[in-house]
Amino acid sequence: MSDLPATMFAVVQTQDGFSGKATGPAIEDASEWLAEAELPVPQPGPGQVLIRLRMASVNPSDLHFIKGEYGQPRVKGAPAGFEGCGDVVATGAGAEALQGQRVAFVAAGSGAWAEYVVTQAQMCIPLRPEISDEDGAAQIVNPMTAMAMVDIARSEGDAFVISAATSQLGKLMCSLGRDLGLKPIALVRRAEAVDSLKKLGAEEVLVTTDPDLLKKFAAISKELKPRVFLDAVSDQLSEQIFVAMPNKARWVSYGKLSAEPPKLTQMGQLIFMGKRIEGFWLTQWMMSTPTEDQMRVVQEVQARFADGRWKTDVSARLPLRDVVSGLPDALKKTDGKVMITP
Amino acid sequence: MSDLPATMFAVVQTQDGFSGKATGPAIEDASEWLAEAELPVPQPGPGQVLIRLRMASVNPSDLHFIKGEYGQPRVKGAPAGFEGCGDVVATGAGAEALQGQRVAFVAAGSGAWAEYVVTQAQMCIPLRPEISDEDGAAQIVNPMTAMAMVDIARSEGDAFVISAATSQLGKLMCSLGRDLGLKPIALVRRAEAVDSLKKLGAEEVLVTTDPDLLKKFAAISKELKPRVFLDAVSDQLSEQIFVAMPNKARWVSYGKLSAEPPKLTQMGQLIFMGKRIEGFWLTQWMMSTPTEDQMRVVQEVQARFADGRWKTDVSARLPLRDVVSGLPDALKKTDGKVMITP
Repeated sequence: MSDLPATMFAVVQTQDGFSGKATGPAIEDASEWLAEAELPVPQPGPGQVLIRLRMASVNPSDLHFIKGEYGQPRVKGAPAGFEGCGDVVATGAGAEALQGQRVAFVAAGSGAWAEYVVTQAQMCIPLRPEISDEDGAAQIVNPMTAMAMVDIARSEGDAFVISAATSQLGKLMCSLGRDLGLKPIALVRRAEAVDSLKKLGAEEVLVTTDPDLLKKFAAISKELKPRVFLDAVSDQLSEQIFVAMPNKARWVSYGKLSAEPPKLTQMGQLIFMGKRIEGFWLTQWMMSTPTEDQMRVVQEVQARFADGRWKTDVSARLPLRDVVSGLPDALKKTDGKVMITP
Repeated sequence: MSDLPATMFAVVQTQDGFSGKATGPAIEDASEWLAEAELPVPQPGPGQVLIRLRMASVNPSDLHFIKGEYGQPRVKGAPAGFEGCGDVVATGAGAEALQGQRVAFVAAGSGAWAEYVVTQAQMCIPLRPEISDEDGAAQIVNPMTAMAMVDIARSEGDAFVISAATSQLGKLMCSLGRDLGLKPIALVRRAEAVDSLKKLGAEEVLVTTDPDLLKKFAAISKELKPRVFLDAVSDQLSEQIFVAMPNKARWVSYGKLSAEPPKLTQMGQLIFMGKRIEGFWLTQWMMSTPTEDQMRVVQEVQARFADGRWKTDVSARLPLRDVVSGLPDALKKTDGKVMITP
């Protein structure tokens, strides 16, 4: 590790623990939660690796996290960011096999929004050379979530509903659904997205601002009988979509893009129609799914990026030193992911 | 059937289908949904029996049903009422073994609030002689629901929460829970009920009007870690109880005593804490549970009534001819069941 600097630039969290609020991922002023810092380059412990960052992606979960609304507590002064890709430049005991490799990673030790990152070797996936840094930096959170959630949908039938379908994750699920012979029903905010999502694999695309949305959805629901609703928004409209779904429907919330708490207007459907409401969290899925099954999913994800079936759309690139000042503006473009570079 | 009259007195439904509303079981004026009628005595078909009514019980589900807010559509002109006991006075092909027996029944053909009732032989349970008509008339819906729901609670741990715990069903679940070595946490509306529920088997009893309720519940939840909430009320307070429960908690709604639609204020708990919201319906349980398991439950229920561990508290007795005029008043006493007699 002699050629490594002693310190590194990082974007760190300014607060500890949970906020106790549920305001959604929107941020107006990043300096409320993030600050710039010069930190010692961390040392990898046993089973860990040190990665020199190539690129980190910004996921909604990163924003929920820095705002204190995620499933694990913030640590004041530690770098933010869950996901990225980079080169392994040092290894702890038992992790030597990864030395020198380019890997996709999830940050489990220190955050990804820093020049160097420490994480567990088992949170790293070596990248094939034909995979770009952009695809590598968004290789785990969204693609694994897409695979795992479409698996849930498939276990209940062939049609399923996706909200916020123009998100990177929504697009992955549409194309994956189509490839598997399923029928994704996509909900989008803007009419301009209809054609591209149909091309991508959506069987039906509905625009949430359409005044006839619920009538149209009811007709589609009656015909296709979707049993699973993979929902990133979780607002009152989500509840109405769920109400219009058939017997045994499962409302699977995996995000809360809206700050509106939905009212349950038809509790009787839980009783008489066997419907239920639940959540999905990739972290929980990874803890409860056997390693072989996870490895199968990892291989499949990488094959899809390698042969071009999947691709990460990038809406903005932000150097680490511009994150605190520039992140809110960069997030305003909704046609792809914001990527952070060293 | 020569000694049977040609017609019978019955309390019939005045409306068809579903109301599309969710107003709860409260009724001010029963004549909005019920009328008196003289109907032909029905004939048992193959697999059916004709029962001369001894006593019918009034369950919340009967009230939800006549108001059009239950899981099956009303039939205008057909007798109301799901449950009772009586003597089998005629049988269809294949049901001869029940001739002359006193049975508890669930009405699947014509309703129980009539002098004679037709139902499937498989919806009848012959009653041991030591069981009273009062216990016989409330032998199936509540006791089977109690057994099935406490089974769900037991599958997740030893502590569980019951709302509306002074209901007959709530009391059955408290005593059953105690007998099984579990820890029922009872929610009641009136402080007077605390002692009797503790005697019955509740580990903890909380009064829902106590301003410190949520603080007290949070402390109990932290200590006993209840994983299942068996909820007959399903209002905003229910949601707050659910929010205060630990990881992997299941909110199982089996009734909607309140007309208030609860808001989901912490969707993130579904995602990060693996919580879920679902319903329980005895009809669905009976359709999806193997007959042997159901028979075991039936035997156990009857043994509990026969040896006095369980007992049906009766708050009012109402002759059939007084139901339309007297039911709302009779229901105002909340310390037991209203029983209907021919």
